[in-house]
Amino acid sequence: MKEFQLIKKYFSKLSKDNPGSFELTDDVFFDRYKKLVISVDTYVEGVHFLNFNNPDLVIKKILRSSISDIICKGVKPELYFLSGSGNKKSFSKKNLKLISKALKSEQKKFKIKLGGGDTTYSSKLSFTFVSVGYSSNIVKRNNGKIDDDIYVTGELGDSFIGLNILKNKIKLNSFDKKYFIKKYYLPDIQYKLFNFINKHTNTSIDLSDGLFSDINKMINKKNLSFEIDLNEVPISNKLSKLISLKKVKLENVVSQGDDYQILFSANKSKSRIINQISKSSKIKITKIGKIISKQKGPLIIDKKVIKLPKFIRGLSINFELFIAFYTFFCIVRALLN
Amino acid sequence: MKEFQLIKKYFSKLSKDNPGSFELTDDVFFDRYKKLVISVDTYVEGVHFLNFNNPDLVIKKILRSSISDIICKGVKPELYFLSGSGNKKSFSKKNLKLISKALKSEQKKFKIKLGGGDTTYSSKLSFTFVSVGYSSNIVKRNNGKIDDDIYVTGELGDSFIGLNILKNKIKLNSFDKKYFIKKYYLPDIQYKLFNFINKHTNTSIDLSDGLFSDINKMINKKNLSFEIDLNEVPISNKLSKLISLKKVKLENVVSQGDDYQILFSANKSKSRIINQISKSSKIKITKIGKIISKQKGPLIIDKKVIKLPKFIRGLSINFELFIAFYTFFCIVRALLN
Repeated sequence: MKEFQLIKKYFSKLSKDNPGSFELTDDVFFDRYKKLVISVDTYVEGVHFLNFNNPDLVIKKILRSSISDIICKGVKPELYFLSGSGNKKSFSKKNLKLISKALKSEQKKFKIKLGGGDTTYSSKLSFTFVSVGYSSNIVKRNNGKIDDDIYVTGELGDSFIGLNILKNKIKLNSFDKKYFIKKYYLPDIQYKLFNFINKHTNTSIDLSDGLFSDINKMINKKNLSFEIDLNEVPISNKLSKLISLKKVKLENVVSQGDDYQILFSANKSKSRIINQISKSSKIKITKIGKIISKQKGPLIIDKKVIKLPKFIRGLSINFELFIAFYTFFCIVRALLN
Repeated sequence: MKEFQLIKKYFSKLSKDNPGSFELTDDVFFDRYKKLVISVDTYVEGVHFLNFNNPDLVIKKILRSSISDIICKGVKPELYFLSGSGNKKSFSKKNLKLISKALKSEQKKFKIKLGGGDTTYSSKLSFTFVSVGYSSNIVKRNNGKIDDDIYVTGELGDSFIGLNILKNKIKLNSFDKKYFIKKYYLPDIQYKLFNFINKHTNTSIDLSDGLFSDINKMINKKNLSFEIDLNEVPISNKLSKLISLKKVKLENVVSQGDDYQILFSANKSKSRIINQISKSSKIKITKIGKIISKQKGPLIIDKKVIKLPKFIRGLSINFELFIAFYTFFCIVRALLN
């Protein structure tokens, strides 16, 4: 997707005199004087969703993905705008009824209102969602502090399993199948936590691209890095069972994206209140690591509790390869000292 | 486009508890408490623009179309968001440079800022623009009063000629060709008039679909109708010349859309100030008719100065047919009396 990095380059120049746009590097636009938070995202069939066989589920998924951008910044989403482009088949009477019903139930669930939108003819189906919230402050990216604890809400990886079931890459019994597909289409976005995020965290992001990709975005501009204990990454009992049955590997599923959980960092002193909030809201909030200095580099603690430098993006861990890397790393360090 | 009326039906239900969305019947969303005005529009290649051979011109045209929605409500556009979906060819380095340069010059011209956006891969090129303004009041549709004068800014029809030149349906010398194509791509949106519109008009709309289609939208919900003198509809000298050369007919070109001029109604007492504003801003503001009661029906005064009921949408005037209608109308009226 090199061309889209190029686009970012050309577009971010245009927003340089507009501090609220963060040079297009955060999830949202924010104007502290107008107390306005806006997020704009486009979802294309075949790119962001597989197909439109389940219009209600697709619409729910992408609406949640859109308001997740506002929630993860510690702000309550208030309004959304929807622009849909598609053909007669996509917007058949039957599908429109399903879309309308899905939006209605999501509006009720997340207390949001439809502000407006647009519908146009196109041979390719796509939706643009605009989500709006009102707040005088947001939790920004790149605002973590050294020694901050890193937390994640909910459980990761289920959505990725669901996607692979839909792609016929993983076969399971119909009960488990249903569970994971539901997790893919209806991510448990942490709507109730926006206020907590706003008050008690230093930096945050929602996990749309994947844990390790998103953690880099969350802290990459500062002279900081991170240390994550893979064993602490929260997963569901059902996913845990799949791993123990060797159907999938932990390290291959927890950083694949589409989780829409909130990753954040907070001062060590917040651990007690975080536990309290987790208990009272009945939402898992799990400490999975901490922010460290860039000099130490990103560190992943794997099952064997060996600290290793993470050179490989996407983290398809090969234990032997890591041992080799680690040995090499120790030799280089010894030589440099 | 019946299916898109269907969409409106299904979507407008969802906005019923949100007064600022006007049940999706106005150009914008408006929240008077938050002083927020938002417009969302999607533009698809082959539907809203012919092709992407001139990326800079296409981008300028659709950006202007987007902020025109805010301006025609009497509000200064402040921010825009752009989400582009396309392939590598559409977003080539050369095209990105042209898009970026075009946006930069429009930002300067209209004093707007880029708030954010999104770029996604799609086999079909489309852009969604979100425009944002801040105001505690807007000029709404359906707020005209009986006996209001109806005005239009600028000149109509040039853009339609430009489009037909691009479609090879009209052939002209290269000088005139250039003039009309420029009017198509770079509509003279009346940025300077937002304040005047806000203060002195009762109802307004921008002419995107066409004079007669848009005038219906502007007043259709009230028990009101309109009377328009076709001879008063402002056209350019170049278009006037084409008409006198019988290359096109007046009635076929002034209501075809893409003009992005502002149509509004104002109390009769405003005529002096409107003339003053027109002179001081050097922008044509022409009285073309007035608001009348619905009982009298929509009336078009054509070149022969005969008042006729307008039953036919899009106004492809056939004089004989109108005479027949008028005779029938007179007979019915006589019988009813």
